[in-house]
Amino acid sequence: MTDTILMDAETLASRVTAALLAAGASPDSTAATTEALMHASRTGIDSHGVRLAAHYAAMLRAGRLNRTPHLTIRRTAPATAMLDADDGLGHYACARAMDLAVEIATETGVGAVGIVRSSHCGAAGAYALKAAEAGMIGLVTSNSDANVTLFGGTLPFHGTNPIAMAAPVTGQPPWLLDIATSSIPFNRVRLYRSLNRPLPTGVAADSQGHETTNPHAAHMLLPLGGPDYGFKGAALAGMVTILSAVLTGATTDADMIPMTETDDRTTPRNVGQFCLAIDPARFVGRTAYDRAITSYLDQLRTVPPTEADHPVMAPGDREWQTARHRATHGIPIDPDTRRFLGL
Amino acid sequence: MTDTILMDAETLASRVTAALLAAGASPDSTAATTEALMHASRTGIDSHGVRLAAHYAAMLRAGRLNRTPHLTIRRTAPATAMLDADDGLGHYACARAMDLAVEIATETGVGAVGIVRSSHCGAAGAYALKAAEAGMIGLVTSNSDANVTLFGGTLPFHGTNPIAMAAPVTGQPPWLLDIATSSIPFNRVRLYRSLNRPLPTGVAADSQGHETTNPHAAHMLLPLGGPDYGFKGAALAGMVTILSAVLTGATTDADMIPMTETDDRTTPRNVGQFCLAIDPARFVGRTAYDRAITSYLDQLRTVPPTEADHPVMAPGDREWQTARHRATHGIPIDPDTRRFLGL
Repeated sequence: MTDTILMDAETLASRVTAALLAAGASPDSTAATTEALMHASRTGIDSHGVRLAAHYAAMLRAGRLNRTPHLTIRRTAPATAMLDADDGLGHYACARAMDLAVEIATETGVGAVGIVRSSHCGAAGAYALKAAEAGMIGLVTSNSDANVTLFGGTLPFHGTNPIAMAAPVTGQPPWLLDIATSSIPFNRVRLYRSLNRPLPTGVAADSQGHETTNPHAAHMLLPLGGPDYGFKGAALAGMVTILSAVLTGATTDADMIPMTETDDRTTPRNVGQFCLAIDPARFVGRTAYDRAITSYLDQLRTVPPTEADHPVMAPGDREWQTARHRATHGIPIDPDTRRFLGL
Repeated sequence: MTDTILMDAETLASRVTAALLAAGASPDSTAATTEALMHASRTGIDSHGVRLAAHYAAMLRAGRLNRTPHLTIRRTAPATAMLDADDGLGHYACARAMDLAVEIATETGVGAVGIVRSSHCGAAGAYALKAAEAGMIGLVTSNSDANVTLFGGTLPFHGTNPIAMAAPVTGQPPWLLDIATSSIPFNRVRLYRSLNRPLPTGVAADSQGHETTNPHAAHMLLPLGGPDYGFKGAALAGMVTILSAVLTGATTDADMIPMTETDDRTTPRNVGQFCLAIDPARFVGRTAYDRAITSYLDQLRTVPPTEADHPVMAPGDREWQTARHRATHGIPIDPDTRRFLGL
């Protein structure tokens, strides 16, 4: 059990399902969470994949996460709604919220759903993808506990606050953006600490807010754009906080209980999310949109690359490539997760 | 006429108005364009301020811009619309589109308007701001002609494609993000060429797509995030292109006639924009939103800065500070613009 092994998706999904059910999660929240974790593990976003099942199971058992959440939907206007996640798994809330946003957008052209009293939702792209699978453009943001500093600030203030967007492409996997508004995740700092290796320049700061490449001195992340243009990354992180938390009534990043680095495993964290669905049929029209996105992507992918063996990729291309590879060769599972899932 | 002078806003606005009217622009397009240019000049975004009046006047005279555009609005669903800008000034189209998005959102909670057959709209933040002044969160994107490369690409593919968002704050100027998805604008490269000064690292590439600090070798910009994390900036630029152009039927960046570096001054460019208005009253509710945004900003602005004399700022704070300064001391006008406006 000390090696990474390769697992087929079906077995893996059934083990994750069993683990979440065993921790007391309701069948609905288990199904949504498994789907989101499998999306990440299939597409190579391993930091947000099935390895998180152990953490969620622990939080379900400890009480921070409501095992049997009752989602409450309040329709606030013809094109908007609020979803109260009842402190359950964020994946369940986000999946339901995006389904609702799509349902709304079918009628009104665009639909927006704010989520309050939620928790970590894994890879935000999983929910943007749901919109694309329904033929719509989906946009998802989630705030998170603070570990990214401001431009010229000395404290962690924003979370790594992801922005995800997916756009449908006929006959192809969707265009899929899913990025943190910092350059790297904080997990990378922890990894470099354990490897005792210097960090890349421009990604982290010490406790005085000064850039550092020393992983042991790194106290927080710098926003995307680094020491010179980090005001842009900080502004994008703020956009995510405003849409996900200020607009919804969730806890803002700097006041949020950390996801992992805390002894408090019982108090719900009140994370916020925002889901938007846009129906191309209500803009240029379905046929013209389909033609335009295909032509845009064809043009992008045929731009000559700087290195001959690294073709230019659209957002998501690397993930879909990984998914094809893993469908044949299996999904790598680290020893800890293997142990947790009994593999 | 060789010096920069300081002008009061009122005189300046009347001269810009006169210059646009003299070039044949209709009163409506003139009013909207003057307002947008004055927003930029008041807040210190001089690259997008009144200096552009000369360019617009030339394009109105040459025929690229329709002097008397008839805007056509097509309501496509309860919460969405398309606006055909009839090849007029983009400022006019964007101002009307955001007014419409706000009007729609008043009824449906969120409103989205796509703009086609438009042109350069100046600072996108000017229209996001209109939403905030109406008590809503406004989001605006515009595509533009290609001068930013992809991640690992050898050709300019996306424009500097701005993302703007404004959020209302009771008793204070709005939170206001207005950023290009490149680190610097291409004008900065031209400036450094004329100064014969090296560019900052990580912002530009030569014609082979390799990073360069030589402004004379710089052929295009690198996306935000630079040589290491530019896949994030490129993805954000793509998000802007998809919302502004693919969704609306506008010309995508790489196929668009350049704004300035072209001899073609007669063919309309078919720029696209996207405006979204979100009513906080339909999410957490007006009072709770007002309290949350104020508290979030208070907390942000009191984070101890890395340098004692540079307090941490929220997006827009620098611009509002400049606006206060310029309201007292005047708006600096460069010699060329001074000549054009007869000042």
